Amino acid sequence: MKKIVVALGGNALGNNPKEQLEQVKHAAKAIVDLVSEGNEVIIAHGNGPQVGMINSAFAESHLVDVNNPEMPFPESGAMSQGYIGYHLQNAITTELKNKKLTKNVATIITQVVVDKEDQAFKNPTKPIGNFVNLETAKTLEKEKQYIMVEDANRGYRRVVPSPKPKGIVEIDIIKTLVEANHLVITVGGGGIPVIQEDNKYIGVPAVIDKDFASAKLADLLDSDMLIILTAVSKVKLNFGKPYEKDLSTLTISEIDDHIANNEFSPGSMLPKIEACRTFVKGNKKRVALIAALEEAKEALLGKTGTRITGDNK
Amino acid sequence: MKKIVVALGGNALGNNPKEQLEQVKHAAKAIVDLVSEGNEVIIAHGNGPQVGMINSAFAESHLVDVNNPEMPFPESGAMSQGYIGYHLQNAITTELKNKKLTKNVATIITQVVVDKEDQAFKNPTKPIGNFVNLETAKTLEKEKQYIMVEDANRGYRRVVPSPKPKGIVEIDIIKTLVEANHLVITVGGGGIPVIQEDNKYIGVPAVIDKDFASAKLADLLDSDMLIILTAVSKVKLNFGKPYEKDLSTLTISEIDDHIANNEFSPGSMLPKIEACRTFVKGNKKRVALIAALEEAKEALLGKTGTRITGDNK
Repeated sequence: MKKIVVALGGNALGNNPKEQLEQVKHAAKAIVDLVSEGNEVIIAHGNGPQVGMINSAFAESHLVDVNNPEMPFPESGAMSQGYIGYHLQNAITTELKNKKLTKNVATIITQVVVDKEDQAFKNPTKPIGNFVNLETAKTLEKEKQYIMVEDANRGYRRVVPSPKPKGIVEIDIIKTLVEANHLVITVGGGGIPVIQEDNKYIGVPAVIDKDFASAKLADLLDSDMLIILTAVSKVKLNFGKPYEKDLSTLTISEIDDHIANNEFSPGSMLPKIEACRTFVKGNKKRVALIAALEEAKEALLGKTGTRITGDNK
Repeated sequence: MKKIVVALGGNALGNNPKEQLEQVKHAAKAIVDLVSEGNEVIIAHGNGPQVGMINSAFAESHLVDVNNPEMPFPESGAMSQGYIGYHLQNAITTELKNKKLTKNVATIITQVVVDKEDQAFKNPTKPIGNFVNLETAKTLEKEKQYIMVEDANRGYRRVVPSPKPKGIVEIDIIKTLVEANHLVITVGGGGIPVIQEDNKYIGVPAVIDKDFASAKLADLLDSDMLIILTAVSKVKLNFGKPYEKDLSTLTISEIDDHIANNEFSPGSMLPKIEACRTFVKGNKKRVALIAALEEAKEALLGKTGTRITGDNK
């Protein structure tokens, strides 16, 4: 039996409740396939479209009537964990029951600690929420001290920092549940980002990359594997070019070479690969996998996906 | 050491994120007072104002742009659990640390099973969301099959059924955490109401009374006590009249007599008392308390509050 942290992409979970209720079935199938192979699985997931939807709904409701509150980003994230977890845990429970597997599933509202000195706070890069026009962008910069950036032809969007995860507030809760053989859904959307001050955790408007948060979770649980499920079967070199090439394996030193050659897209494959690199570097026994959502089981069995290991493997 | 389920009112948690961040401090103080007396505490809470806020924000955002999704009631409830739990768990953690107590706090997204044959589905009574005018009410009745009722002088509001809780989907998760000495926040807003069909849990637009859900939780955990914290120090007879009278104790048969005399307000004190009655009826050792949020500890020590027991105590 292997202990496996599985990271699901938020984009695979749909853009509204009706879509999500359908999409989670695919994710549930992938998860339960891994469980039915005898593994202990812990689930992490993204929340990009979902937290954007929540944050925007409150912003628009506030524009209609100033008595309707806006929803700060950490609170929007907490809501997204409940919203996604509710659908995901039910879909997984149904899939488990269909396969006559007995396991309880829990969604834990999860906070991830970041360092307030993280350089990311000086250089916000993660776009969130709706596109707005120049005039609205200027108003938001002035009135709310938002940092707005232009996206070619689509208008302006708020950007927030994407600091690195330093710890998981609820890690002991997660360990207790995993040890009791329950299935845990945690660090949704990379976790609610908080800084620690004296005896307090304080939410900050930021987005922690869900792949980095998943790697931190896998590290703290001392998992055997980190599986990042995405839209492609394997990591590719020369992605999108005529001479693109699938990679079935990657080692840390190969990753370093490819990153030096700018092989991986910063907003997409690069954080996945960096997260895997961080995880496998922590311990020689560790293996990371990047694979397509629909091929999770096949990837685990070595039939597809990109397997990432330390250099001595 | 006693095992105590504490039910907090949603009205005591504020109407927007800024208010809530302050209000949870009072709730946290009450909870940690009980913990510091050496008790094992499990926390339930209401979500009336919060789930209304969430549901309305999406409804208004949808009116602005039909591409913005409306949020069904069960999903809004799941969001409210994340939103309230996030603030509440942090406030409790801070209060625990201030008192040098070591405990982890977890918010569990919690579903409560209701019976689809529950008579409440034929007679929706629980008002939710914003007031609207007659015209909008008629449109909602026609287009969404909402049931709208008039509230004297304030307009029309949607009403949903309030079925009785039959079970808690995540009860084994909660038991595992309680046994491991963690503090659990659960059945937020009475739980996300679901019906069970084959291997599926399906969310239904309904509101489970948080006091009944708390009593069910206390029963399933075989708690020693159920404490319902509210805005008044004691249950009263002749409430609001010149000859009103505080009650320090109540037995099941006294409750039955008072209910027969319509002593308790259906939308307010009656469900609290019925929930306590159900809980203490389950086992002779059980005690229920109704007390003011600020006086939780004093009530536990027998100095105030209304203590509810079986007839033989």
